[in-house]
This record gives sequence, C-alpha cells and structure tokens, in this order.
Amino acid sequence: MRHPALPRPPYHVAILRYRRNGEDAAGYDDALRDMVEMAQLQPGFLGMESVDDASGDGVTLSYWTDEASIRAWRAQDGQGVIREKDRRGWYTEYALQIARVERAYAWSRDAAGDEVDDVDAPGAVFPV
Amino acid sequence: MRHPALPRPPYHVAILRYRRNGEDAAGYDDALRDMVEMAQLQPGFLGMESVDDASGDGVTLSYWTDEASIRAWRAQDGQGVIREKDRRGWYTEYALQIARVERAYAWSRDAAGDEVDDVDAPGAVFPV
Repeated sequence: MRHPALPRPPYHVAILRYRRNGEDAAGYDDALRDMVEMAQLQPGFLGMESVDDASGDGVTLSYWTDEASIRAWRAQDGQGVIREKDRRGWYTEYALQIARVERAYAWSRDAAGDEVDDVDAPGAVFPV
Repeated sequence: MRHPALPRPPYHVAILRYRRNGEDAAGYDDALRDMVEMAQLQPGFLGMESVDDASGDGVTLSYWTDEASIRAWRAQDGQGVIREKDRRGWYTEYALQIARVERAYAWSRDAAGDEVDDVDAPGAVFPV
C-alpha cells in the first residue's frame, strides 16, 4: 500500500498497533474491509495505510482532517473501530493512539527513477 | 516486537513509513541497529516498535517525551535519522511524520490469558 497523498500539517492520525492471534481470519478480513469502506465515506477522511508481517504483527495508520472526524468515524459503528467482542477474539494485543501531525516530509522515486520531494516544512523535519 | 510501555499522553511520536528497494540488506541492517542504539541513549526516548512485511513495506514508530528530543536525536547524526545518501540507496519511498499523541488506549492478553487494560483517557478513546 502506498503512502497516501496528504495535505500540509496539521492533520490527525489514528495509529492502530496490534498483534493478531490467528483466529477467525475470514471474519477479520470482512470486518477490516467494512472498516476501510466506512472510513472512506466519512467526512474528514484523508487516507489509510497498513503494514502486517507474517507473524501477525501489524500497524494501521488512518489520516483525518481533525480529531472530531475520528470521533465521528468511531462513533458510527457504535462500539469503536472494531466491535469490542470481535476485537478480543482476533487480537492478543491492541493499542490505539490519536495524534496530531505537526510536521511531515515525504520522498519517493517515481517510475522513471527520478526523485520527488514533498516537503511540508522545508528544513524543519528532514533533513535536520 | 511488543508495543512499548508508554506514559500517559501527551508525548510525541516519529512515524517513519518506508518502502525498501531490497538493495544492500547488510548495510541497512547495520544502520538500523545503529539508529536504534543511538535512540536508546538519547534523553527523552520512550520506546520504539517496527513492522515490516515481506515485500519491503515497513513502519517504524519511535516515541519521545517531546519534540525537542526528536530534534536532538535527529541532529546527532548530522544529516537526519539515516544519512541522506544511504537513505536514497535503500528506499523507493520514505515518509516521516512528527506527531503529538493526545490520547491512547492499550489492551492486551497476558500469558495466563487474562485481559489487561491500560486506559489513559477512560471513555474518551476506546471504546467510544
């Protein structure tokens, strides 16, 4: 999954860090798809990216214009990002952090091999 | 890697999102080890966690008491978290975001199967 195009800071990020227990893979995949679809329909949604390794460790980052949008998204399904009862069936560890992104820097190499910088705060974040 | 024990918010997180190009794996591993060791010695360091998948996608989260500590860590090696020239040899994509964690919730199941909650802002983050 590519790093999404994001506006200049400030914006908010919901950092979901988890360890899967390997149970109910089909139910988990269904719930994850629903969660992503629900987020994409929500006002204030900016993008999402996720990395999972083979052992069940994962991080999902969802980006939002403001904290109110995160609250509205989480309130929408009644009991949080993933329903409490399901969450406890899928994970052995689960941590959610809500943070305000203050500065950002992105760099990539495009298909032609050329470098593309996206510096939101020149000189402030990277390089030092 | 387990989610590190963290203080109550606020604290800061440096979110490093990258895509590896698969080149120079040994050089990369050495630099990563150096980076982690350097961070652990730095005032204000709270913890670090990382998830990498088989395709070369990864996220590294490092936690700090405040933004000044992140700046000091990054300034220490002169040219950023990883030297500019090396970074461009290892990655096809690289994004760094500096954020202030405002709220956090963690849950885990301990070795005995019992549930352990670590709620920093009860009722505010998770569950809604």
